[in-house]
Amino acid sequence: MTTIRDIPEVAALDTRRGLVRIPPEFDVPLTSRVRQVIDTPEFRRLSRVSQLGLVSLVYPAAIHTRFEHSLGVYRLALVYLKQLAGDERFAKAVSREDAEVFIAAALLHDLGHWPFCHPIEDLNLPGVPSHELFANSFLLEGEVGDVLRHDWQINPRDVVTLLSEKPRNTSSRILVSMLSGPIDIDKMDYLHRDSLHAGVPYGRHFDQQRLLGSLCLNESGDGLAISDKGKTAAELMVFARYVMFSEVYWHHGVRAATAMMQRAFFLLHGKLDLDPLFRLSEGEMIAELEKAAGDGPAGELLAGLFGPRRLLYKRLAQFSFLEDGDLYERLARKPYPWLAACAEQFAVIVSRELGRVVAPHEILFDAPPQQREVQFDIQIHFTKQDRYRPLGEVSPVVSALAKEQFDDFVKRVRIFAHPRLIDDLRQLDHLPQLLSEAIEQM
Amino acid sequence: MTTIRDIPEVAALDTRRGLVRIPPEFDVPLTSRVRQVIDTPEFRRLSRVSQLGLVSLVYPAAIHTRFEHSLGVYRLALVYLKQLAGDERFAKAVSREDAEVFIAAALLHDLGHWPFCHPIEDLNLPGVPSHELFANSFLLEGEVGDVLRHDWQINPRDVVTLLSEKPRNTSSRILVSMLSGPIDIDKMDYLHRDSLHAGVPYGRHFDQQRLLGSLCLNESGDGLAISDKGKTAAELMVFARYVMFSEVYWHHGVRAATAMMQRAFFLLHGKLDLDPLFRLSEGEMIAELEKAAGDGPAGELLAGLFGPRRLLYKRLAQFSFLEDGDLYERLARKPYPWLAACAEQFAVIVSRELGRVVAPHEILFDAPPQQREVQFDIQIHFTKQDRYRPLGEVSPVVSALAKEQFDDFVKRVRIFAHPRLIDDLRQLDHLPQLLSEAIEQM
Amino acid sequence: MTTIRDIPEVAALDTRRGLVRIPPEFDVPLTSRVRQVIDTPEFRRLSRVSQLGLVSLVYPAAIHTRFEHSLGVYRLALVYLKQLAGDERFAKAVSREDAEVFIAAALLHDLGHWPFCHPIEDLNLPGVPSHELFANSFLLEGEVGDVLRHDWQINPRDVVTLLSEKPRNTSSRILVSMLSGPIDIDKMDYLHRDSLHAGVPYGRHFDQQRLLGSLCLNESGDGLAISDKGKTAAELMVFARYVMFSEVYWHHGVRAATAMMQRAFFLLHGKLDLDPLFRLSEGEMIAELEKAAGDGPAGELLAGLFGPRRLLYKRLAQFSFLEDGDLYERLARKPYPWLAACAEQFAVIVSRELGRVVAPHEILFDAPPQQREVQFDIQIHFTKQDRYRPLGEVSPVVSALAKEQFDDFVKRVRIFAHPRLIDDLRQLDHLPQLLSEAIEQM
Amino acid sequence: MTTIRDIPEVAALDTRRGLVRIPPEFDVPLTSRVRQVIDTPEFRRLSRVSQLGLVSLVYPAAIHTRFEHSLGVYRLALVYLKQLAGDERFAKAVSREDAEVFIAAALLHDLGHWPFCHPIEDLNLPGVPSHELFANSFLLEGEVGDVLRHDWQINPRDVVTLLSEKPRNTSSRILVSMLSGPIDIDKMDYLHRDSLHAGVPYGRHFDQQRLLGSLCLNESGDGLAISDKGKTAAELMVFARYVMFSEVYWHHGVRAATAMMQRAFFLLHGKLDLDPLFRLSEGEMIAELEKAAGDGPAGELLAGLFGPRRLLYKRLAQFSFLEDGDLYERLARKPYPWLAACAEQFAVIVSRELGRVVAPHEILFDAPPQQREVQFDIQIHFTKQDRYRPLGEVSPVVSALAKEQFDDFVKRVRIFAHPRLIDDLRQLDHLPQLLSEAIEQM
Repeated sequence: MTTIRDIPEVAALDTRRGLVRIPPEFDVPLTSRVRQVIDTPEFRRLSRVSQLGLVSLVYPAAIHTRFEHSLGVYRLALVYLKQLAGDERFAKAVSREDAEVFIAAALLHDLGHWPFCHPIEDLNLPGVPSHELFANSFLLEGEVGDVLRHDWQINPRDVVTLLSEKPRNTSSRILVSMLSGPIDIDKMDYLHRDSLHAGVPYGRHFDQQRLLGSLCLNESGDGLAISDKGKTAAELMVFARYVMFSEVYWHHGVRAATAMMQRAFFLLHGKLDLDPLFRLSEGEMIAELEKAAGDGPAGELLAGLFGPRRLLYKRLAQFSFLEDGDLYERLARKPYPWLAACAEQFAVIVSRELGRVVAPHEILFDAPPQQREVQFDIQIHFTKQDRYRPLGEVSPVVSALAKEQFDDFVKRVRIFAHPRLIDDLRQLDHLPQLLSEAIEQM
Repeated sequence: MTTIRDIPEVAALDTRRGLVRIPPEFDVPLTSRVRQVIDTPEFRRLSRVSQLGLVSLVYPAAIHTRFEHSLGVYRLALVYLKQLAGDERFAKAVSREDAEVFIAAALLHDLGHWPFCHPIEDLNLPGVPSHELFANSFLLEGEVGDVLRHDWQINPRDVVTLLSEKPRNTSSRILVSMLSGPIDIDKMDYLHRDSLHAGVPYGRHFDQQRLLGSLCLNESGDGLAISDKGKTAAELMVFARYVMFSEVYWHHGVRAATAMMQRAFFLLHGKLDLDPLFRLSEGEMIAELEKAAGDGPAGELLAGLFGPRRLLYKRLAQFSFLEDGDLYERLARKPYPWLAACAEQFAVIVSRELGRVVAPHEILFDAPPQQREVQFDIQIHFTKQDRYRPLGEVSPVVSALAKEQFDDFVKRVRIFAHPRLIDDLRQLDHLPQLLSEAIEQM
Repeated sequence: MTTIRDIPEVAALDTRRGLVRIPPEFDVPLTSRVRQVIDTPEFRRLSRVSQLGLVSLVYPAAIHTRFEHSLGVYRLALVYLKQLAGDERFAKAVSREDAEVFIAAALLHDLGHWPFCHPIEDLNLPGVPSHELFANSFLLEGEVGDVLRHDWQINPRDVVTLLSEKPRNTSSRILVSMLSGPIDIDKMDYLHRDSLHAGVPYGRHFDQQRLLGSLCLNESGDGLAISDKGKTAAELMVFARYVMFSEVYWHHGVRAATAMMQRAFFLLHGKLDLDPLFRLSEGEMIAELEKAAGDGPAGELLAGLFGPRRLLYKRLAQFSFLEDGDLYERLARKPYPWLAACAEQFAVIVSRELGRVVAPHEILFDAPPQQREVQFDIQIHFTKQDRYRPLGEVSPVVSALAKEQFDDFVKRVRIFAHPRLIDDLRQLDHLPQLLSEAIEQM
Repeated sequence: MTTIRDIPEVAALDTRRGLVRIPPEFDVPLTSRVRQVIDTPEFRRLSRVSQLGLVSLVYPAAIHTRFEHSLGVYRLALVYLKQLAGDERFAKAVSREDAEVFIAAALLHDLGHWPFCHPIEDLNLPGVPSHELFANSFLLEGEVGDVLRHDWQINPRDVVTLLSEKPRNTSSRILVSMLSGPIDIDKMDYLHRDSLHAGVPYGRHFDQQRLLGSLCLNESGDGLAISDKGKTAAELMVFARYVMFSEVYWHHGVRAATAMMQRAFFLLHGKLDLDPLFRLSEGEMIAELEKAAGDGPAGELLAGLFGPRRLLYKRLAQFSFLEDGDLYERLARKPYPWLAACAEQFAVIVSRELGRVVAPHEILFDAPPQQREVQFDIQIHFTKQDRYRPLGEVSPVVSALAKEQFDDFVKRVRIFAHPRLIDDLRQLDHLPQLLSEAIEQM
């Protein structure tokens, strides 16, 4: 009987043959069927889509690609499988065939990722395909599908199911929890990788070895859990994610760039053909956006981000849940079109105050999106007592992060303005009232 | 006018002359007056006192000395001074002379540390000198005092004052907050160093560079604070400390060894002459204890820790604040003599239950000491708004750590027993009742 | 009198204000005049030129930019200056003004770097501008020149002189040796950075701290030297460079890609307008090359490198100086046009042998270029004896590297062929004779 | 059929159970039979013998123990076995039983190491047991032997044979080459570990992963070799060893301490009972030496090393092979008694010159010992051509290290003198002649 540890890719972790190297000094084992996948045009495209998009305008070295990240996630899939293969319940629930589908899914989980995917999805605009549905066409119609069928003897539909449908049996539920959850292979790779390329230590601040050594199944046997010896390591990983949000993903400069991109896309999306647009590489997509924008307002915004001269909007004000609860509440989690209209209304008001024209696109409002960060729930298995408890229940720190700190403290409401206005605007001494006025006129 | 940055040791950070190297690849600048200090017998003694005492019975590489740690703290003192010298209020409040006393204090802060100091202090026994008072005699009477007077032109009494008295002016309050507080040079060194030598990543999980770059003064100008760009780094350091308590300092094996040491010392302390005992190196002190113990119960306990064959007591049960509030409450923070008597009572009870003699010293109770961990209070300076807020107020995570997680979650009540009894004791199926019975008989 | 340490950028190393972060956790201090430079179109272009070009086809994460590298070199310029400012002879020879020109030169040293610069320069084709001369136009004509004049009060011509002319006085000779030599700021950055992004340890294997701490001037006082305490660190850096050549820069897969690029450029260069071409970003330049190539042979070569599907030529044979001295000697250091013609001749011969058409561009010869790697000569200052000796003389290892190992062992002669031919070609059992035949027909 | 990978300790590398942690974040798997070994008095003794002895007088944190090192070597034994188990020839030649003996030998290879073993062995005095023979008694007579017989089902004699006898069959030859050779598990651990604890980067400068991934057998199938993809990694490891000799093991301060220890031992050894002495812990052995020395010359030397006040002799002169060939040749590799007598002769001469009494033990000569460093010979397997070549032949760097740099450049002849004499002695302006005079009088 062959087992999970006999899957060629899992076995190759030990034999160290056919490796490709990615930071931080990881050997990623490439079998010939993996090479077949990564040399397809669909997968190569990921080498032209950056992992962090606009972050590189603030952290200039953070230009790493989804190609690199996908290799990292694929490697972790092997490591998780090798580790869990020693767990009796796992070995019984997950067949070798299921495990191979999981490996393919890990490698391909970002195949449908288009450039600047997250800021665009946060707009919640009609006509924007769901990221998962979009990915399916890549998997089912392109060359990747052929490779899966012929070289992997896998039905691409099974990969699609694992990546985008509600799991229907124990095996799938387990595998889905390894792809998406508080301690999944995606986060475990990107926290570390984003941190490394940004040049900050935060996302590498957790004990991977310890976490890997304590992987197990939850009480009902249908999802990933962590044994108690990994509890602190799990807390550390949740905390690392918080710090990366605080210092990188929601850095105010990054949010300024994001607000610029969002407004430009919002202005343009009516005249864009999204399906082909989202199949392009990052460079090509930027070129298309610039073409559509011409030298209108969207064009000016895009030029600041991608043009020959970097020009980011400046922070005029920020409101936090803690300090400025009222204004925060009135702007956070509002639909984007409302937010854009409100910012334009505010531009009118400050035009009046300054006695000069402030163009609508010169003021941007940035606010926490409707979707909250979740994924703190994982069970801890106390092995001596053979009891399972949710992490949040046995960790006040994780509970504090989940309930308060993550969305409410890290994600601020911010007002950005074009640098040519910022000095004048900072002279206005009753900004909160002007802002209230704009909100009330909505 | 000479300034803090002209102090020879601070200047030597840049000139990189006369260095001694300590992990992790730190160059510690040694001027000739520093060499004079570290070559005295009092200071050399620190090279024969380990930083973590009994921890090395569980983490075998963690045998680093207070000598190494003292060099690390001294180096950080220079780094802090160099950084804060750029802060106007600091430069105004702290004279060059005060700064030199601070450097000497940093180098000498552990001079009076006797081996196994913390477990012994936690016993709160009469006749045990306060650690600080004890240190003073080293500073005032020995050769170190001479070096301070002649080579440093410093009155040793000023170092004593800084290290052990309530600060009486602004300058002292600032310097004391750099020696002892949530972001002090002592913790910043030991968290990193203990973690490195134990072979775990936890205590190195914070961004020293960022913390150093954000040092400033608090609102009233008489204590260390952190500017907002260092807020997350401060959260990380508080969290790192929690993890080190959880995984190293209060590891159950370490607590077993600590409980053995405490009981042995408790049994012996009546016949020990503490003052000379506490002036010995670690090896010499162990030899003295062994001599006093002979082959009685204390001797057996000490043999397990320091004899040719390592023998640690095993964990019979543990009670946490969260899971077992009632039993936890009845044992936590009790005076040690009560706890020892209760354990002996319990030994009588289990003797009865097992139908065999369980010697009094074969059962040990370990419980959180009366003194709680504190030191979470530091102000964060929000520079844009020029507002100061306590870290706990702007960080739910730190607040959760401070209020709940630190003492209540990390520190457990534990019952340890000699390995030769453990299998039989684990058969007893009504342990909590037996324990209640013991408590009630007190 | 203001000194080198008062230059705002040098001072900012300590104050830690206005930082940008690059790997590996380096804080790069940005003053406003530095921001002015890096926001110009000329400098931003470097964020679209990769440091290692084709290496990313083998090490997929090595896509870091010349922008990041330039920031790294600029930071090292400050560190070198700060260190050397403590050297009396240096402080006397180099004025504050000269040091500011040096800082600007460090930041701008790669401004004229066009994409794939090294492989193209190795072709030695007529009409290819010298890299340095080309850079001058960027410095003298563009916006960077304006910023230097207005914000730095520097004549851009002085930067040009330092970067591309033979130094005419002591100060210049010193500064030039810091920009280009065995221990220069360029190599010290790129070895580390390339290694980090490739995911290999080799280029980080030297002790930067120690090297920095031992910087001094040579015997005649007009160039960088290393004091004896840095001798081993210098050997380590020379060795690290060798290993990076062996494992990364001259990796056989990287050379296959380089050979493809070189042949394509060689085929196309007659119809390219090089000056505007070399001013483009990497993506734009590739697009131009692809346009010029159409679907001819050059187009096929480029498609394998940059097209939707990666296709690298395979290694048919390799000849080393040591093992195959004769064939090695007959191909190494030959002019590129000769090498290309010889490869085409070989294609004719193997067509005959295989009885099928092998197209001229399906066979590529790769050989060590005419220019040898140099830069091993730096003096070591033996401080006790106050004697200066060349590093090669006191280090047999460096001498071995310089004389033999670098060019002769690392750089091989290689024959690459299109994958569709490789299996058949590998059946030919008298390859060396066929190769001799081709050479003789030249 | 059970295989090498089924040996419980090898299997435990993956299951991550029962671990003990040592730097640098290594998990060492402890099975119950390994715990039995390490809890014996013989093995516990290693926790009281430092790895580097006198080095900690210069690198104060380098106090790590042979206990820690033994765990590190044992772990590497498992890693080597796991890797080589995939090599067909290895799997055929080495039985599971042989592999278990190898694991035990790795764990126990330092069991007979007495404190300050290397400096004492270098004296080549009669009556000093060979280190290996001495170890045998620990293995055959003590409790370790019992554990091997009962818990491991291993005849201790087989471990002795592997550790100290000339291997007599293929399997033994292979295993011996893994224990002792250029890429053995001992060096691979100690280079890294010594470097880490000393706080220097040098000994960690090689790519362990790559080396491990390229382990194979040599041409005749009876010894370890490295495949060509590991060639540079092997060069790096040889180079790392050179740098550690240069900067740590033969650091001039370390040699001063060594010379002091050697002279003291030389003076005392007639009255010491070596066999029991060498069975002590480091602290106990120092106490014995001090007792034997009283307050005579040896006592003074020992007091400088181990007394309350550190006092190291100062370097008066040093002679290198390169610079001072003649004097170097006349002193290097001389028998210790000759060297000591010559130093005493020199003391007489300088007494005359200075017009004051210089005591015989106030002058120490230190010279490279008779035994040269070897172990550069390992074969590289060029897999494409299936050819084996000695590393030295394909690496000029390694050849340079082996033939010249290692002994001749790193190991100097040095003259040390008591600090109270050093200033006067440094005034003598014809030192080389005085030295020649001393040599000629021998």
